[in-house]
Amino acid sequence: MTSLCRRGFLLGVFLSIFLLTTVLGSFSSRAAADEGMWLFSNLPLKYLAEKYDFRPDDQWANKLMRSSVRFNVGGSASFVSPRGLVLTNHHVGSDTLQKLSSEGNDILANGFLARTTEDEIPAPDLELNQLLSINDVTAQVNKAVEGAADPAAAAAARRAVIAKIEKAASEKTGNRCDVITLYGGGRYHLYEYKKYTDVRLVWAPEADSAFFGGDADNFEYPRYCLDACLFRVYENDKPAVIEDYLKWNSAGPKEGELIFVSGNPGSTSRIFTTDALKYQRDIRMPDVLDFIRRREILLQQFSLGSPEKKRRANDETLSFQNSRKAYTGMLGGLQDPAYFAERVAEEKAMLDKLQSDPALRKYASAWQQIAELQAKRSALRDESFSLNTRVYRLARTFVRLAMEDQKPNEQRLPEFRDSGRESLERQILSPAKIYLDLERVKLADLLARTLEVRGGDSELAQVLLQGKSPTARADEIIANTRMHDAAFRKELYGGDRQSILTCGDPLIELALALDVEERRLRTANEELDEIERQAYAQIAEVLFAIDGTSVYPDATFTLRLTFGVVKGYEENGKMIPAFTKMTGAFQHQEDHGNAEPWVLPQSWHAARDRIPADMPLNFVSTADIIGGNSGSPVINKDLEMVGLIFDGNIQSLTSDFFYNEKQGRAISVHAGAITTALRNIYDAAHIADELEGQPQK
Amino acid sequence: MTSLCRRGFLLGVFLSIFLLTTVLGSFSSRAAADEGMWLFSNLPLKYLAEKYDFRPDDQWANKLMRSSVRFNVGGSASFVSPRGLVLTNHHVGSDTLQKLSSEGNDILANGFLARTTEDEIPAPDLELNQLLSINDVTAQVNKAVEGAADPAAAAAARRAVIAKIEKAASEKTGNRCDVITLYGGGRYHLYEYKKYTDVRLVWAPEADSAFFGGDADNFEYPRYCLDACLFRVYENDKPAVIEDYLKWNSAGPKEGELIFVSGNPGSTSRIFTTDALKYQRDIRMPDVLDFIRRREILLQQFSLGSPEKKRRANDETLSFQNSRKAYTGMLGGLQDPAYFAERVAEEKAMLDKLQSDPALRKYASAWQQIAELQAKRSALRDESFSLNTRVYRLARTFVRLAMEDQKPNEQRLPEFRDSGRESLERQILSPAKIYLDLERVKLADLLARTLEVRGGDSELAQVLLQGKSPTARADEIIANTRMHDAAFRKELYGGDRQSILTCGDPLIELALALDVEERRLRTANEELDEIERQAYAQIAEVLFAIDGTSVYPDATFTLRLTFGVVKGYEENGKMIPAFTKMTGAFQHQEDHGNAEPWVLPQSWHAARDRIPADMPLNFVSTADIIGGNSGSPVINKDLEMVGLIFDGNIQSLTSDFFYNEKQGRAISVHAGAITTALRNIYDAAHIADELEGQPQK
Repeated sequence: MTSLCRRGFLLGVFLSIFLLTTVLGSFSSRAAADEGMWLFSNLPLKYLAEKYDFRPDDQWANKLMRSSVRFNVGGSASFVSPRGLVLTNHHVGSDTLQKLSSEGNDILANGFLARTTEDEIPAPDLELNQLLSINDVTAQVNKAVEGAADPAAAAAARRAVIAKIEKAASEKTGNRCDVITLYGGGRYHLYEYKKYTDVRLVWAPEADSAFFGGDADNFEYPRYCLDACLFRVYENDKPAVIEDYLKWNSAGPKEGELIFVSGNPGSTSRIFTTDALKYQRDIRMPDVLDFIRRREILLQQFSLGSPEKKRRANDETLSFQNSRKAYTGMLGGLQDPAYFAERVAEEKAMLDKLQSDPALRKYASAWQQIAELQAKRSALRDESFSLNTRVYRLARTFVRLAMEDQKPNEQRLPEFRDSGRESLERQILSPAKIYLDLERVKLADLLARTLEVRGGDSELAQVLLQGKSPTARADEIIANTRMHDAAFRKELYGGDRQSILTCGDPLIELALALDVEERRLRTANEELDEIERQAYAQIAEVLFAIDGTSVYPDATFTLRLTFGVVKGYEENGKMIPAFTKMTGAFQHQEDHGNAEPWVLPQSWHAARDRIPADMPLNFVSTADIIGGNSGSPVINKDLEMVGLIFDGNIQSLTSDFFYNEKQGRAISVHAGAITTALRNIYDAAHIADELEGQPQK
Repeated sequence: MTSLCRRGFLLGVFLSIFLLTTVLGSFSSRAAADEGMWLFSNLPLKYLAEKYDFRPDDQWANKLMRSSVRFNVGGSASFVSPRGLVLTNHHVGSDTLQKLSSEGNDILANGFLARTTEDEIPAPDLELNQLLSINDVTAQVNKAVEGAADPAAAAAARRAVIAKIEKAASEKTGNRCDVITLYGGGRYHLYEYKKYTDVRLVWAPEADSAFFGGDADNFEYPRYCLDACLFRVYENDKPAVIEDYLKWNSAGPKEGELIFVSGNPGSTSRIFTTDALKYQRDIRMPDVLDFIRRREILLQQFSLGSPEKKRRANDETLSFQNSRKAYTGMLGGLQDPAYFAERVAEEKAMLDKLQSDPALRKYASAWQQIAELQAKRSALRDESFSLNTRVYRLARTFVRLAMEDQKPNEQRLPEFRDSGRESLERQILSPAKIYLDLERVKLADLLARTLEVRGGDSELAQVLLQGKSPTARADEIIANTRMHDAAFRKELYGGDRQSILTCGDPLIELALALDVEERRLRTANEELDEIERQAYAQIAEVLFAIDGTSVYPDATFTLRLTFGVVKGYEENGKMIPAFTKMTGAFQHQEDHGNAEPWVLPQSWHAARDRIPADMPLNFVSTADIIGGNSGSPVINKDLEMVGLIFDGNIQSLTSDFFYNEKQGRAISVHAGAITTALRNIYDAAHIADELEGQPQK
């Protein structure tokens, strides 16, 4: 699994140790206004009918579901032509753009255009998922867990039955099948996905256009970004024939118009109790931010070395910049005493209600359990470390593969189950180039950080360093490893599992030496997750009892429908209009003295006269989105593609915890800007024609 | 007091909460090779005679002492002409260069040249000190402390007698008189300084020349920096007549030549026990680095706002970049298990020796006391916070002034004693412009950080925030304060002390609200310092007993003499030559593709043909230096100025803890490069003439 955090509203999954505490899959009862990340199997039909007089039928929802695409690197996308064109953000494609770049051919920076399908370049390790069906398997899961002796036994039984359901479904359909935990364990759904693994790059603009304004403009509005790129899925070496795709509407949406967003929000924490929020505010987020800033500075220092080094670190640098800004905004929201007081008052009201209701009173202990858990989370965090570089991750995956494959499928760690094997192979055998100079500085820093966390005299430090300084040790390991070599990994994967452990690679040996300790920490975290999951499941029962079923589960990086209207907002007494224009980008550059990062690429300047004066570029809406929604299509009631989500504004950054209709906004690229750019800037009328359903020449 | 950390080898004094634990003024017994930061009253005459056959007399030492100058912002300098020219580093002058700059007139970036003395610009708040005499007052101090009931009483008695000695000396001489604690309290010396407070800028090169290679080249070698600038001291509005100054020698030193460095090393910790070093390695330094990176990113973000914002934050940005690199190097040294094992073995050998010597055995408890102290340091650190912005520091100083001035002189906090009042006034009444936009983002971040340290629900958080978010609260405070206004401060200082506390300024009110808590933390730190000081004084006795008096005290930002030879070193099997050339700077730019930060200023390119092909630019030597030595003159045996210390190499960064003659090097600007640049690049032959003692035109 790629585990970098990414910019825009791409899901941040950069450090598993930081994330373990939040992916709980619980839910919120506070559906109000245009709030909510709704399951396709439980859309807010009543609300839409009452407020917007809109009544989508099953066919509408089903077509939209099947037109939606998930990027497993952490983003969303959609089918936009019957010949397999997939539209997503430049910053969702950037992981692939970076991997397709090399010294002297910087596709991430300079863009790409395929003149014909023959020119389209295969991505080395991309997997796209299309959701085909949703089935409720709650009864089957709960039955298997009934009568378990303790939480650990319950968790094991649940893992086993989930592995069994997934394997059976996967064998039956030939598709990827995942059991998703929703409503904090209140529901289990089986999601069947068609996988596309032959994915080729069709078009990407320059980074200076896609990410115009850079880190400074990130999460700001007004914006002027063409944050889009196009891939094409292939089957049997031919463009795939796609039945369900979104019709393109270059006219885009109107101000005030109802729009929908179909995508994969990564993770929200709206059900969190105030004690859980305090832990986020006082412990976890400050800690995460320290790490992000540390990595950001490290990457800056590495990039100073040469333009080529800068290129190598570019995508990761942008990702960490983005995460830093996102977490700063989230923490800022939590540190507002007014917000917190409101949450405390709400919680108190609910607990009072509980106490006065004999049927619900028994659930009060759930809040207490969650409160008691936070000190344990904090203690566990104090000893958590990570050597999470690409080569170390690969080595650890191989070591665990050797161990897990000796167990029956149901007893393995989830990522080693048979149902996920193909996806796993794609990752560990990826031919994407790994740059050892970058790996070395990251490994050295993570070794140093582990010393800081565990103490320079700790047993772990001795295991890691073998008597050398962190830098010398990283030098030695990187000089001798072969984990960066895809051919070596292929050989290792092809051999018997035991030979992995004895291959002598220093990273395999390191991962082996750390395996017991890393598993101990993982298990300890999972135990806390399990207790917390059960507590939130009880809280979920309370919410169900009070609010009925008009509730949506917290985000789980699975397909959700959100909706809203195209609408500006007020900031510091000033009205921020909903739309920006393509021509405004030039003005924006001039307003910043034509200085980096406000320099549009040459292609834009050359085409300036050909850009219609009124063509919109970006727009904002009240849709309730979060990281993972990057690349989601914005559609109108007629299921037409009118925009492309790529970011949220600063005020939306608290949406992990609460939806802010007043000022929080989702930011999109206007559909017309993309076709205009293709025709008038990028000399790619053939693609614009395909998008707009014009006859192909 | 200016309290920013600074780049190069300027003393880092940026955050008092981070420094309280290190300025102990203890000493090292490990004088070997060219190691040592020697007191002018106890030079290593025997070693110099034996190894170098050099026997300086009292006159030699006295003249050098009086030619040396201390910059109270944290650096060193020297008199280099009879008409008051003072040579220091550009990065030592940069605090003043920044203060003399304004929008559209960026002296820090673009340099400055006074064609005549009339053009020389007065610095707003600079104080230079010239050491005139050293007197041992140990007996007087110890007598006053005799029979104190407990450590707190001893500390109070010591503070009182020191205040009394300083005041008497100051009144008698009219000069600044400081009692310095040396050898961990083994010795107390009274230092008499002549103060120069009318200091004017004469010449500074462009930052691109002074800091060529920027953050990337910082602490690296080979280097190509003209890190120099010139001030002139005035008395009675005329250039001061200086009797003791260094003769300039543009020929510079030769390879292998013995050289001396006279300057003010800020702080070393060479006496530290291994337990104290572990605290530095595992707790303090990682924490300091987290803060530095946080501030660095904050300043980067602020600077993205506009070129003018970038200019405003420039000096501070450079300072934090420098500190980050310095601390990373120091921590890297401590994290090397081989180094640590060596220190542990040395300590064990000493403790074994102790146990076998009945006269020394009683001192063993000192090591134990220091060990036990570290957990208390750590706990105290966990609750330490700071709102250390310029305006808050000013407000707090005013609040304390109101309180302390009601006490007798000997009972006041040291910085409010009568003897330091003039220097204090210069700081708090400085007309240097304070930019509120920069103050606001720093205050908001420090408020947020305090919440992180103490918890969002803590009583302190409530006092700080008054129900608002950190950002909103900072906005409100900065919108209403007048502490940035020098006229307001002057009025406040001129009124009665009580009216300070009731003036209604929000920062005064904040400082008042925090005063009890800030004093509690300060006192708690000072109590730990006192216990530690007494323990190190005992360890000092052991070292005296074993090594005699051939030991030097740890650095205390007072004048010291160090020495060494001009000498290259080996790195990764490659020999790094001692000298670089001025012409090499152009090659260095080309080697980096003419990209920032390797772009020499236009003045250099225009003068390229006029620069002699073989003129050296920088050179390295084995002199034992550390932060605070920036700007120190490098002199030969004949007391001639041959170079100007401005940095150390990466390998020297561990010199806080140990001297590394093998690879650690001090980096200097060659004297000839400065006069060559003045004549051939900066059209300033009149200054070069003055330096070289040529008749003035």
